[in-house]
Amino acid sequence: MLAYLNGEFLPLENAQLHVSDLAIQRGYGIFDFFRVNERVPLYLEDYLDRFYRSSAIMGLEGVIDRPALKEVVYQLIRRNGMQEAGMKLILTGGYSPDAYHPVKGNFLVSQHPLVLPTAAQVAEGISIITYPYRREIADVKTINYIMGVWLLKKMKEARAADVLYHRDGIVSEFPRCNFFLVTRQGTLVTPANHILHGITRMRVLEVAPSACPVEVRDVRLEEVYEAGEAFLTSTTKGVLPIVNIDNRPVGSGKPGPVTLALRDLLRQRERAELQKSHQVQNS
Amino acid sequence: MLAYLNGEFLPLENAQLHVSDLAIQRGYGIFDFFRVNERVPLYLEDYLDRFYRSSAIMGLEGVIDRPALKEVVYQLIRRNGMQEAGMKLILTGGYSPDAYHPVKGNFLVSQHPLVLPTAAQVAEGISIITYPYRREIADVKTINYIMGVWLLKKMKEARAADVLYHRDGIVSEFPRCNFFLVTRQGTLVTPANHILHGITRMRVLEVAPSACPVEVRDVRLEEVYEAGEAFLTSTTKGVLPIVNIDNRPVGSGKPGPVTLALRDLLRQRERAELQKSHQVQNS
Repeated sequence: MLAYLNGEFLPLENAQLHVSDLAIQRGYGIFDFFRVNERVPLYLEDYLDRFYRSSAIMGLEGVIDRPALKEVVYQLIRRNGMQEAGMKLILTGGYSPDAYHPVKGNFLVSQHPLVLPTAAQVAEGISIITYPYRREIADVKTINYIMGVWLLKKMKEARAADVLYHRDGIVSEFPRCNFFLVTRQGTLVTPANHILHGITRMRVLEVAPSACPVEVRDVRLEEVYEAGEAFLTSTTKGVLPIVNIDNRPVGSGKPGPVTLALRDLLRQRERAELQKSHQVQNS
Repeated sequence: MLAYLNGEFLPLENAQLHVSDLAIQRGYGIFDFFRVNERVPLYLEDYLDRFYRSSAIMGLEGVIDRPALKEVVYQLIRRNGMQEAGMKLILTGGYSPDAYHPVKGNFLVSQHPLVLPTAAQVAEGISIITYPYRREIADVKTINYIMGVWLLKKMKEARAADVLYHRDGIVSEFPRCNFFLVTRQGTLVTPANHILHGITRMRVLEVAPSACPVEVRDVRLEEVYEAGEAFLTSTTKGVLPIVNIDNRPVGSGKPGPVTLALRDLLRQRERAELQKSHQVQNS
């Protein structure tokens, strides 16, 4: 498997960074992650928008310009020959002489097999727990997952598939996914603030108005327990139903009709996007 | 300069980690940092206590046992031959196959020249700003400095030497230092909660009762602005006077008498510690 590191294509197993890199010294870096389907980097422009935005906000330098980055992405797809994959961009704070001030960053692009939800998770939905936390610069995709990784033990003990953050009574997001609920009156609601703006979340908000009323606003933790349906969204998980929160069943305890309708709409949207991309490639 | 990485002594410039390491992928790791003075690793046992505690709380594996770690420290001191230095221990989440779950960690020990406060900072004190933030697992020395590094720009614009965190009206700590104030009545006060328990902070709390009354408790942000004196503590900075906070002078605007007395007491304590260590080495 080929990767790209600082201007060079090389086998992924040879991609190393010196320990003075600010990711190792101070956990300072950003990343992004998108799917490759049928050799098409799905919604690439949206992910690149977010990646360059993260880079600018964190004051990071060292990423190549957009046409060059897209050329790297397409070359890796061609040369690695994977039909379906995840592709990850990482930009770190670089080899900092004082182990604190960022310098020219190290920039890595790597391709990986996709880890998708299990068939049972998709069909039956997942259980989640909640935890009081809010990411520090939530609308930037930093590499800081200290809390998310630390909570894996708690999740395992609770037999939960994910953990939903909240603070001051307001729900925000999962470590790697966005949160949606459907009220008992059938309105789709998702947190407006203290979140990473997921690309899949954006797609769901685009297709949802044809199916139900939509509200993007602060969501209180109590509302979560009273919801008729709930689900999470992410690049790899799509729309994944949530049927249990903190040991309380959500609505009927089964994936709800609005959730399933939105999952279908999201898949149709993806299908259309892929067909459009293939037509462009063939024209 | 020699370093130690996963069982091997090697030149620091050759110490590299594969990009799958969880520090690079997810900012997941811990570290610690102590001073070497006159070839003595000052208060080594205290720093090792904290390092092993951090490792246990974060569920990290891969660090060698205490006698072996001490042997590495003393070998690096001997072989690198630096009289005065900083020494850093880093333990990461390891080469995680799924880039999320920790595995056997990568363990690094490296030695570095000390970066000390300038003579002007020590003599005249520093200016600081405040910022609303609290570290997520504050009593563990994780490598997450996303906020601290991100605030460097704001500090520079404000011509501030450091930034003091607070949340919900309660002051906690600096990114890399602890905070103390002296009330106008002459009582030394330092935050009790939401902090990393600094070794220098501990030493100051040990020597202070001979100089003034001491309170370890929650500290409100308003108290900070009303303080008669203020200072920070850290392994490299010792006791460093703070003379300006958010553009308001602290007390007289000059380093205060209690601050200077504590700085002297801390230095005496260090002197005694070094002499004790030399006697042990020579006996």
